[in-house]
Amino acid sequence: MRSITTEKLDHLLAELETKGIDLLLVNDSEMARTTHLQYLSGHPTDALLAITQSGETCLMPADVPLAEEHAEVDHILDLINFQYSAMNALADFVKKSVKTSSPVIGVLSNAPFQLVLNLQQYIPNCKIYQKPREIGFELAQLRATKTPLELDRLTDVAHLSNNLLKDIRRFAQNASDETENDLAFYVMKRMRELGADENAFPSLVANTDRSYQLHCHPYATNAPFNKPGLSIIDFGAKLNGYCSDITQPFAFGTISTEQQKMIDVSLKAYDAVMNMIDIDVPIHTIAETARDILEGAGYPMNYGLGHGLGLEEHDAPFLFPKPTDPKRLESWKEQRIQEGMVLAIEPGAYVKGEGGFRLENDIMIRNGKVEMLTEARIEYIS
Amino acid sequence: MRSITTEKLDHLLAELETKGIDLLLVNDSEMARTTHLQYLSGHPTDALLAITQSGETCLMPADVPLAEEHAEVDHILDLINFQYSAMNALADFVKKSVKTSSPVIGVLSNAPFQLVLNLQQYIPNCKIYQKPREIGFELAQLRATKTPLELDRLTDVAHLSNNLLKDIRRFAQNASDETENDLAFYVMKRMRELGADENAFPSLVANTDRSYQLHCHPYATNAPFNKPGLSIIDFGAKLNGYCSDITQPFAFGTISTEQQKMIDVSLKAYDAVMNMIDIDVPIHTIAETARDILEGAGYPMNYGLGHGLGLEEHDAPFLFPKPTDPKRLESWKEQRIQEGMVLAIEPGAYVKGEGGFRLENDIMIRNGKVEMLTEARIEYIS
Repeated sequence: MRSITTEKLDHLLAELETKGIDLLLVNDSEMARTTHLQYLSGHPTDALLAITQSGETCLMPADVPLAEEHAEVDHILDLINFQYSAMNALADFVKKSVKTSSPVIGVLSNAPFQLVLNLQQYIPNCKIYQKPREIGFELAQLRATKTPLELDRLTDVAHLSNNLLKDIRRFAQNASDETENDLAFYVMKRMRELGADENAFPSLVANTDRSYQLHCHPYATNAPFNKPGLSIIDFGAKLNGYCSDITQPFAFGTISTEQQKMIDVSLKAYDAVMNMIDIDVPIHTIAETARDILEGAGYPMNYGLGHGLGLEEHDAPFLFPKPTDPKRLESWKEQRIQEGMVLAIEPGAYVKGEGGFRLENDIMIRNGKVEMLTEARIEYIS
Repeated sequence: MRSITTEKLDHLLAELETKGIDLLLVNDSEMARTTHLQYLSGHPTDALLAITQSGETCLMPADVPLAEEHAEVDHILDLINFQYSAMNALADFVKKSVKTSSPVIGVLSNAPFQLVLNLQQYIPNCKIYQKPREIGFELAQLRATKTPLELDRLTDVAHLSNNLLKDIRRFAQNASDETENDLAFYVMKRMRELGADENAFPSLVANTDRSYQLHCHPYATNAPFNKPGLSIIDFGAKLNGYCSDITQPFAFGTISTEQQKMIDVSLKAYDAVMNMIDIDVPIHTIAETARDILEGAGYPMNYGLGHGLGLEEHDAPFLFPKPTDPKRLESWKEQRIQEGMVLAIEPGAYVKGEGGFRLENDIMIRNGKVEMLTEARIEYIS
């Protein structure tokens, strides 16, 4: 089943009309991946999707039985009937379903150059819409608020992740000489056993020597995970294509006064933010609240406070303070918390030499209320 | 250090001249990946590379210290000096190093459409070469024979994989109720412990119920790996970017007469092929030898006998029989075994209901001789 609702699709079609785009093409292949394919059609991967300005949809998949199971489209074309060429199939669909003989075709920013050349060959009088970023921006905006199907799927992956969280805490409580890699591989395997498709992203596992890095590189090493001090694991599961994103922090052994302060200030920012998130609150004010608490205590917030979650682990909206740079301010628009948003919130404090602390949980705005989806919390292990 | 030699680069530059391309651009980013970046520059990932027709090279990397460690280029441009825009940096390089004011720029087939649009904006009078596939084809041809650096790296990853093979056989010998997933995760983890960057591809682990599939889907399940009959694990490691590709077959318990025949015929094809591979042998005759033995015994070879290995796990050349379809024959060209080729050879027999057998090892043509790189062999476990 496709994620997009009829209402959102109508909005997209109106945008196509405004821009004069007769046909929108979304291509997902080894050459270039996009989750817009699954969002718009329900089909998970490896296909060309065409949507006319009037909303007629046509899928040209690599795997027809997979499409018959998942896709919610008007037509599924089997390439076996088109000399195994998606371009032949597309040309046939355009001939039947697009009225103008010189259609304007919209593609995404990451459409392969060869695809654009092929379009010009197979649909001779077509014009390629020259502002692909605008199309991507429209889709990102649509996807910033989730549809009922998406909210259900995001709830499912959060539920799975909470079970995994319990296993991770048990792993940490019983750890003797386990390494960062041991935990990363345990999470990868356990996630699959619990039914996940795969990791949403490679788990970041950092002991106290590396946790000061916002996104540690490499993701995990053979160093002990439970070295005294501040460790974190930042992980996400993917289920039916939808992602969770959680950071579980640990304090191992006796920690320093500075480390305790880092925990306390981060949790203060976390609580303040969670208390203020509500429908219609301007998103920048949420980020600014966290920043003021953290920076007031001497910890720079040179990172985003959080981000949306969906088919991407980093989805719109992004939680940043209002820009101060006048140039950036020009193109900046205020965004507010809306029904259907699903967010990962991740304040933290990072000090080279002391380590890093971050607590990250996922929340959902449903039926006008804020729901906590995930259950990470600081874990002290002596 | 870059993989390409001066001699091969000269060949590429001559091709650019023939095609009238003033500047070749290779872009590796989240939007579109290509190992040509590492091949041509030594820099592993996330950069824009420009090569002029006269061979001047300029790298615009996301990570400058990484480039300083790995890249072998004339210029490394730090985007901090170009308002964080690779396009500004490129325009500066073109101004200084490309003589014509309306240069022809070559890009790869998978170049993102937005990149092509950006080029037209930042290098106003440029023309984009309209046959990107020709450029990819040239590069694939160059890369079909490996350079000394590549042969060393492919030897290293084969050596690592042989150590892993021993561990895999030990795992299988000691298996009690381990699943396909258990083996897949063991291999993933053990590979890293042995020093690999990562899997070259997800390991395919199939017990006797699934081994009839050429490439089993899903890659591994929670079914027991050592169910009586024919199991395989098809895995590859990546080290310094270079890949191995090995299939280790197992016969667990008492096997049927048909299963033994599948093993014997496949090994007969394997031995025949290994005995005939030598410099100057036409590649199609090798594939045909295997096909004749397998199909003579009733097992269709509806797959390629093997393929090259390098920065890609499927690299040129590809080992197929001469096509019979007259249309395909038109564009077909005879290829021969050459010094520097590195090949994975993988004959097998697949029968739904009986299972599948495949033995796959990697070989190298160096100093005029065929070297066996990897050491998979049928393993009978009672």
